[in-house]
Amino acid sequence: MMPSSANIAPARSAAEQRRLHEALRDLFEQRIVFNRLLGLRVESFDPAGPRLSFEMRPDFVGHYQSGRLHGGVISAVLDATGGWSLMCSIAEKFASDDTEQVMHRIARMGTIDLRVDFLRQGIGRRFEASARTTRLGGRIGSVQCQLENESGALIATASAAYVVS
Amino acid sequence: MMPSSANIAPARSAAEQRRLHEALRDLFEQRIVFNRLLGLRVESFDPAGPRLSFEMRPDFVGHYQSGRLHGGVISAVLDATGGWSLMCSIAEKFASDDTEQVMHRIARMGTIDLRVDFLRQGIGRRFEASARTTRLGGRIGSVQCQLENESGALIATASAAYVVS
Amino acid sequence: MMPSSANIAPARSAAEQRRLHEALRDLFEQRIVFNRLLGLRVESFDPAGPRLSFEMRPDFVGHYQSGRLHGGVISAVLDATGGWSLMCSIAEKFASDDTEQVMHRIARMGTIDLRVDFLRQGIGRRFEASARTTRLGGRIGSVQCQLENESGALIATASAAYVVS
Amino acid sequence: MMPSSANIAPARSAAEQRRLHEALRDLFEQRIVFNRLLGLRVESFDPAGPRLSFEMRPDFVGHYQSGRLHGGVISAVLDATGGWSLMCSIAEKFASDDTEQVMHRIARMGTIDLRVDFLRQGIGRRFEASARTTRLGGRIGSVQCQLENESGALIATASAAYVVS
Repeated sequence: MMPSSANIAPARSAAEQRRLHEALRDLFEQRIVFNRLLGLRVESFDPAGPRLSFEMRPDFVGHYQSGRLHGGVISAVLDATGGWSLMCSIAEKFASDDTEQVMHRIARMGTIDLRVDFLRQGIGRRFEASARTTRLGGRIGSVQCQLENESGALIATASAAYVVS
Repeated sequence: MMPSSANIAPARSAAEQRRLHEALRDLFEQRIVFNRLLGLRVESFDPAGPRLSFEMRPDFVGHYQSGRLHGGVISAVLDATGGWSLMCSIAEKFASDDTEQVMHRIARMGTIDLRVDFLRQGIGRRFEASARTTRLGGRIGSVQCQLENESGALIATASAAYVVS
Repeated sequence: MMPSSANIAPARSAAEQRRLHEALRDLFEQRIVFNRLLGLRVESFDPAGPRLSFEMRPDFVGHYQSGRLHGGVISAVLDATGGWSLMCSIAEKFASDDTEQVMHRIARMGTIDLRVDFLRQGIGRRFEASARTTRLGGRIGSVQCQLENESGALIATASAAYVVS
Repeated sequence: MMPSSANIAPARSAAEQRRLHEALRDLFEQRIVFNRLLGLRVESFDPAGPRLSFEMRPDFVGHYQSGRLHGGVISAVLDATGGWSLMCSIAEKFASDDTEQVMHRIARMGTIDLRVDFLRQGIGRRFEASARTTRLGGRIGSVQCQLENESGALIATASAAYVVS
């Protein structure tokens, strides 16, 4: 669905690729302040299967008796996951860009809209979010995401559209 | 669109209505832990125009240089706003229920899905969220919400569906 | 929410405005073939309150016994309504464009995504759809729509995003 | 994700299963009048991978010059596909129900809401829609769908929620 341009464009060197990954991780885990509050961690940079994780925390619950993730935490994580998926796809599509050029492209991304389906109660100790980029055009990117707990129960799915440029 | 049953059912007394409002505010502002983290405050219990507010905080921004609300904060607030709108509509629809009965109905609500449209950058010092209940059936409730800053700029809208029972 | 550029740009003449309206109506009612199949008719070109109508027909029902509009008819009508709202907003925003220039802009529009909330059974003889444009930026347009029957019952709402350029 | 109850409940006989499939096909292809107008055909009853197909027709295009599927056709097909996915899941879940009992359950289904992402131009001669049921609870069913052309290009995806009972 998302043909890589790696076959055409000269790929970046292994050193540059590592530098890009460090820059992406730093942006995503540290500089996006609310992601830090959520404790989001990058698990995979693979554009064919980008992944994030986070741990349950007491202030993530909805009602204090329930012990379940608040819907807002789920929405925030899935929005971030969609963004992460596109960041990985952009890094792959523009395979001859250096780190600064990729980071410049990513800085211009913005979420247009997001739909979240809340399927099961958000119960668990550790959660993993994954995504697939279904479109990366010149102006619009589209992504599908899902959130599972450590037992593999499907807690929520999301669809989102983003401006890219 | 949402005919009140107040004309048919005997309304609760002014004292009971105050007690219900205190219970709803306590649930919404304190017991839903993530709402407390967001600093959400009830501004109106009116089922025809329920309203919430919150103040900007440094850890609500997306990228640390932008000063704009993270999309996840916006989604979380609008999900909470949709829930608040239904709570107010349920309190009105079951006008002869006492506080405990209303709180029992509300405890069984759950978000089915949520769509957020991010329209403008979330810039501001204070934000206000409002909603309208477009359906309150025996099983499903539907709500439309919007978020504005203190200047009245429309930052985001949302549509959501909830299980009620 | 949607400031008109009419104050800045010289408005088109009354004759040109009529010519534009005829071109828009012809495009919308005739050249968009599926709209013709739906029997959609333009009721208002007002960008602050664009409106369409259509009549019930036997092949619009879901199950043959129910007599209710099929969800697909509702989705199709609301997608078309969102597009119509943006056409009217574009005609207003680019007030110094002549008919050909406006039609050229409109030809480049495309729906990014659409959410429909089905609120009540689609029962009626005549339906009216209305909309409001919540954003018309340089690249993205956003719209909220609703469908009512001849008694004013709210049958469905929709939110949609479009590429504009 | 969707454990079958077939292990617990006695499965229906092969003859009853054939009778059920004929009843489902007749409902879906003939009695849902708008599906007949769309020319939808059942390709698979498998709840793990339900599939439908339809052929391009001149009155399905958007603008008469484009030759692309109108967004309304895509939305209508994907709403129908989500419904089809749930019908197949219900038939599997209630494996000891006879045909009449399953058809009775299905008659009470209704779409709550639908999101469609339009990813690529709807160009093709023959289209195939598939789905997966992500939840089938006692009250709510959730489905993800996709539409491809005969070359396997991903044209649109959808998420939808349904009332079941």
